[in-house]
Amino acid sequence: MHQITVCFTPAQFPHYQQERCNAVAIDILRATTSICTAFMNGAKEVIPISTVDELKTYTGTEYLIAAERDGIQLDFADMGNSPHYFTRDLVEGKTIAYSTTNGTHTIKLAAQCHSAAIGAFINISALCRWLEAEERDVFLLCAGWKGRFSLEDSVFAGAVAQKLIDTGKFTTICDSALAAMDLWSLAKPNLTDYIKKAAQNDRLSKINAAGAIPYCLEIDTTNIVPMYQNGVLRGVKK
Amino acid sequence: MHQITVCFTPAQFPHYQQERCNAVAIDILRATTSICTAFMNGAKEVIPISTVDELKTYTGTEYLIAAERDGIQLDFADMGNSPHYFTRDLVEGKTIAYSTTNGTHTIKLAAQCHSAAIGAFINISALCRWLEAEERDVFLLCAGWKGRFSLEDSVFAGAVAQKLIDTGKFTTICDSALAAMDLWSLAKPNLTDYIKKAAQNDRLSKINAAGAIPYCLEIDTTNIVPMYQNGVLRGVKK
Repeated sequence: MHQITVCFTPAQFPHYQQERCNAVAIDILRATTSICTAFMNGAKEVIPISTVDELKTYTGTEYLIAAERDGIQLDFADMGNSPHYFTRDLVEGKTIAYSTTNGTHTIKLAAQCHSAAIGAFINISALCRWLEAEERDVFLLCAGWKGRFSLEDSVFAGAVAQKLIDTGKFTTICDSALAAMDLWSLAKPNLTDYIKKAAQNDRLSKINAAGAIPYCLEIDTTNIVPMYQNGVLRGVKK
Repeated sequence: MHQITVCFTPAQFPHYQQERCNAVAIDILRATTSICTAFMNGAKEVIPISTVDELKTYTGTEYLIAAERDGIQLDFADMGNSPHYFTRDLVEGKTIAYSTTNGTHTIKLAAQCHSAAIGAFINISALCRWLEAEERDVFLLCAGWKGRFSLEDSVFAGAVAQKLIDTGKFTTICDSALAAMDLWSLAKPNLTDYIKKAAQNDRLSKINAAGAIPYCLEIDTTNIVPMYQNGVLRGVKK
């Protein structure tokens, strides 16, 4: 039996043993959903970038730049952080330099584990097929919001944990995983309704970006799992 | 309306604005339950001590020493961290120097807020009477376990948040508070049964200390709220 661990925020990351795990970076509203969408629409690569200064070095190159801070697209970026930016017209065959408030930091932390993938509701079954086939302990890392717990990321972690436990090949002794599964059990009957109370719902409404939420809560829109290697994400069919 | 914020672990503490809040330190299994018990049985003061070295300076004095690391009583301590140590015979009129793996650090962090109290199921109604009377924002700080999330502390935070919201004088925009209340809604019908899956249940069983758990889940055994001031806790009837 393989163990599942859930870490609710990057702030807690140093307190977990995760080096030998397959990690999943989770930022449902919106970074990891948008990255899955980019690969679904033919993007070649996504490069997660931590700082705005580093991102600026990509201006004037062949790369597309996707970036937000506090939800709002940076003025020198080609696109913001909502999935609707990542159309096939724009991203097919392209490499995207990507930086967001919480998501890219989370991806870089996940990259410290045995291997790291990007998870979202829109690729949840493909993600779980990969995790199940790997036969390795799983570490689900939620992006949260500036070091704080986020409901939507935690509920997704619970959905993944439950799916893996239902295979009979995984178990957990992690209180965060148990709590996340309990939250998922409450959210599952009406996910859209449940997530309405999340703080990120209000944050996105205030910047007129809440229109992205229903898409971000759709299940299995794509069978592509973005995988991290040597500083770059690439989409892999699972 | 006053705001309720829940912080699931000390690791996340720097990411919250809490200076103007009334804080509650929560370590249900077992530190905050034991501290409430000590005051219920007539202890004069409890001094939370962070390090073992500092605690050793209290040996050979009139103070009682209560201390554990990884659940196990330290060899130079008069008592461990289970509530049953804090009998009236032993603690009445005494000052106790107290150090535990997670609890005392949590109390010291809570002390950075406007004011800090100690919460446990055994004093939950008294605690909520105090918080309600104060008419101030509330910050519920869970001790967790070595930087990780703990189910029993989070469920208690949810119980307090729900009680305060039910007064009509409090609200929350904090995802952790919302999640904690959802967990409490699942735990409430049978708290003892719900907490059986918590990792701390296993940890205490391994050191033959699980016998303390039923007592730690009792509701309203005492109406005393331990309050922190100038480095010392004192019990106050509420």
